Amino acid sequence: MKNALEREIPDYIEGYGEVLPFQGAYANPMVKKKIGSRESVVGPNETKILSSIDEALDKVKIRDGMTISFHHHLRNGDHVLNMVLEKIAERGIKDITLASSSIFPVHAPLVEHIKNGVVTKIVASYISGPVAEAISSGSMKKPAVLQTHGGRARAIESGDLHIDVAFVAAPTADNYGNLNGLQGKSACGALGYAVADCQFADRVVAITDHLVPYPNCPIEISQIYVDYIVKVDSIGDAEGIVSGTTKITKDPVGLKIAKMASGVMKASGLVKEGMSFQTGAGGISLAVAKELKEIMEKEGIQGSFASGGITGYIVDMFREGLFRYLFDVQCFDLKAVESYTQSHKHQRMSASMYGNPHNKGAVVNNLDIVILGATEIDTDFNVNVTTASDGTIMGGSGGHSDTAAGAKLTIIVSNLMRARLPLIRDKVTTVNTPGETIDVLVTERGIAVNPKRQDLIEKLKDTNLPVMTIEELKAIGEKLTGKPKAIETEEDIIAVVEYRDGTVIDVIRKIKE
Amino acid sequence: MKNALEREIPDYIEGYGEVLPFQGAYANPMVKKKIGSRESVVGPNETKILSSIDEALDKVKIRDGMTISFHHHLRNGDHVLNMVLEKIAERGIKDITLASSSIFPVHAPLVEHIKNGVVTKIVASYISGPVAEAISSGSMKKPAVLQTHGGRARAIESGDLHIDVAFVAAPTADNYGNLNGLQGKSACGALGYAVADCQFADRVVAITDHLVPYPNCPIEISQIYVDYIVKVDSIGDAEGIVSGTTKITKDPVGLKIAKMASGVMKASGLVKEGMSFQTGAGGISLAVAKELKEIMEKEGIQGSFASGGITGYIVDMFREGLFRYLFDVQCFDLKAVESYTQSHKHQRMSASMYGNPHNKGAVVNNLDIVILGATEIDTDFNVNVTTASDGTIMGGSGGHSDTAAGAKLTIIVSNLMRARLPLIRDKVTTVNTPGETIDVLVTERGIAVNPKRQDLIEKLKDTNLPVMTIEELKAIGEKLTGKPKAIETEEDIIAVVEYRDGTVIDVIRKIKE
Repeated sequence: MKNALEREIPDYIEGYGEVLPFQGAYANPMVKKKIGSRESVVGPNETKILSSIDEALDKVKIRDGMTISFHHHLRNGDHVLNMVLEKIAERGIKDITLASSSIFPVHAPLVEHIKNGVVTKIVASYISGPVAEAISSGSMKKPAVLQTHGGRARAIESGDLHIDVAFVAAPTADNYGNLNGLQGKSACGALGYAVADCQFADRVVAITDHLVPYPNCPIEISQIYVDYIVKVDSIGDAEGIVSGTTKITKDPVGLKIAKMASGVMKASGLVKEGMSFQTGAGGISLAVAKELKEIMEKEGIQGSFASGGITGYIVDMFREGLFRYLFDVQCFDLKAVESYTQSHKHQRMSASMYGNPHNKGAVVNNLDIVILGATEIDTDFNVNVTTASDGTIMGGSGGHSDTAAGAKLTIIVSNLMRARLPLIRDKVTTVNTPGETIDVLVTERGIAVNPKRQDLIEKLKDTNLPVMTIEELKAIGEKLTGKPKAIETEEDIIAVVEYRDGTVIDVIRKIKE
Repeated sequence: MKNALEREIPDYIEGYGEVLPFQGAYANPMVKKKIGSRESVVGPNETKILSSIDEALDKVKIRDGMTISFHHHLRNGDHVLNMVLEKIAERGIKDITLASSSIFPVHAPLVEHIKNGVVTKIVASYISGPVAEAISSGSMKKPAVLQTHGGRARAIESGDLHIDVAFVAAPTADNYGNLNGLQGKSACGALGYAVADCQFADRVVAITDHLVPYPNCPIEISQIYVDYIVKVDSIGDAEGIVSGTTKITKDPVGLKIAKMASGVMKASGLVKEGMSFQTGAGGISLAVAKELKEIMEKEGIQGSFASGGITGYIVDMFREGLFRYLFDVQCFDLKAVESYTQSHKHQRMSASMYGNPHNKGAVVNNLDIVILGATEIDTDFNVNVTTASDGTIMGGSGGHSDTAAGAKLTIIVSNLMRARLPLIRDKVTTVNTPGETIDVLVTERGIAVNPKRQDLIEKLKDTNLPVMTIEELKAIGEKLTGKPKAIETEEDIIAVVEYRDGTVIDVIRKIKE
């Protein structure tokens, strides 16, 4: 069958199950009740501290076929996923479904566990490095499932993704399971991606390298959700957890794109008192923040909030009073961690509160402007940030689709050429974010507005910005790069791309060798 | 049948259902999964603001037989329960179950709604004033259900108490339903008793008199739980919401009891570095806090936390550094509200986190010492704070049973005579807290230790404290008051007293007139 974006998708996928096809960004064809969760009673005088990961595996009765979860706040410095899987593998356990909010190059040892059948399925919102390569080459028994950050919370809350045991890397914990990411040698800031896991998993094991006296306040994840705590020497490598600083691009092309994007924002009429804004941690995205900062300063505008994974640059804007509040699901750098620790106006949010489409209203719904990237975009404005143009997995939506769906103005900023290949395609290799949720594409050679935003096209007529159709922009790009060869794929599906509402927006097939 | 405390209880009660008898404070005969909750999706560009309570009643499709809930943070200043019920009564709706965490004299208009059949059942943790009198006189169609604070959270989370619509009095709200009790003319501090309602009710309506720009931070109850917001002129009367100050007793008998209680605490060995402590807002309870304060200052002791409903006196101890943290489920006075607003070390907790016996460990489980009152206590140390000695309802457990079950040392402080009647009975009129969870009774004439605490009896031998058996203490009391006449009751059950685990610990029968 074909879904609403004309992507060819089987109605049943082995290792995944029945497919509910994507029906439109706001169709929500299957809103479910929140599931219940198993309650394990801890009474007075019971202890939650265990001596080792092995003891925790005994307590949770780890066995073949279970689904275990991890969060990615320690990013490329995470030790916890590897430690736990090593112990599971030692026991000869097979057929684990690994639900990790993201997977990074540091998780390379997972490739062996995939090959040995310890892990036969992966569910994640972002996968890069050796594990992505292993999946792309067809090493996994079952297709990987790629979700959005909000979609993952939705899947956990609705029971679509039932977690038997959640393992939580906790930079600080007390002996009763109150957790936060604020202190200790592995401090990472907000723990927003771990919240749903803790609330809905049958069993929750916190793994920490910084055990403090009870109570560990402020509490981000409460004792009422945590069964066991294991103290280890190190949950991560500080170098990989947070970068010292996130930096604005120095590339003149990137700066030009940022300048043009700020022109679009301004023309839209959304840059005004009380505005809300989100941008990523990439160099061009931060350059757009800098442009916005200058406008806000000049015009004396104070915004309501900035959101997302928070960077030092956004913290600076907040401290300067350009935003009254920050909504933070994860801290990208040390300045963000510091700010999160100091001010209650730097407010944490769970992944559900950030982007779940099926709760009573996520933060993304209140976003005015979001700045996003793209690996490819097609003439229907569908975006790919999941696969490289050679068809291999190299990322995933993360919050891309969530923010695009919520924001009043979604701007894609990108060079027109990427690795000598054209950005704009007739058809993107993989869709993760539907074109109906994308408003504008800004490149160094021109700006294309989604035709459904005639209001915006009108507003941009009053500017000097180089607005053209996406087809025109595509032609300019192809003059530089030539038309790329289509990649050839086999029938085998190596990954299923879920939209935030749980429908299937695309599948990724194995590349012909 | 008889339960574990030998109370006569039918195995089925009309209007209540099957009875699961009390089987011991830590037996937990029916731990259930958390239930799911209905999810109502709020998408981008949808508004949650409604113009009136009537519009909210339309939106939630209010109808006969529904269960609606309220919280009691506005205490005797609350306008919200009366406002909503008036609108429901105007519609001719009948047979409502009213689940309010507590009911106060201000809720007198409810008596008419009971008589008219608008409200036919009440579930609460504390009931005083005209509504208590109406229930006692047999005006309700179905028996009232009295729960503990932790037991109420348990009942809501497990589905034993399913809430169709939760109405939340919100001292501050934004237009997307982020709520707190910190600002506005009806500021009341922490909103711990409303949390389970918001998480598990099918529909949640916030009613506020202080609507602020989005986002309303810090967020105590998140937008992801709130369907609608209604702005009204006034949700409460500040005079009744928080008292200006809570005061230590000046009565020399009360001060003597406090002094003796501090001797018991000291002898127990629990007054030491890292200790935790809870006491009520009553005059003697606060006098015990003062005694503890002096010991801690003199000996240079710093405690880990104080918990419960927080008073200014406890805030002073916290500010002086005698406790590192406060766990607050409700603020009793203005100083507590102010402290809660200022410091993240003054940490909020939900009723579930406070005292639910069926989650993964409540705060009460980590309490060292709790100081509680009693209306009556019997020679098995069972306590009544629910009915007066004439058998009429005048209160309820609140957190009494929760803290008694959790704390390492539970001390009852009370005058030996109360309203010319003896405190100590062969059998209390109503049991709400089982004797096995009470360690010591301190009165002005002597101290009785529960025989199961032989360790404590040994420790008290080294002091000058007047320790005796509870029978001896009872005899002293009866010399002063005479033996009271037993009250005569009819068969009709007017209220069912649930222990925190949901079992029935006692029933209250109608008094013979």
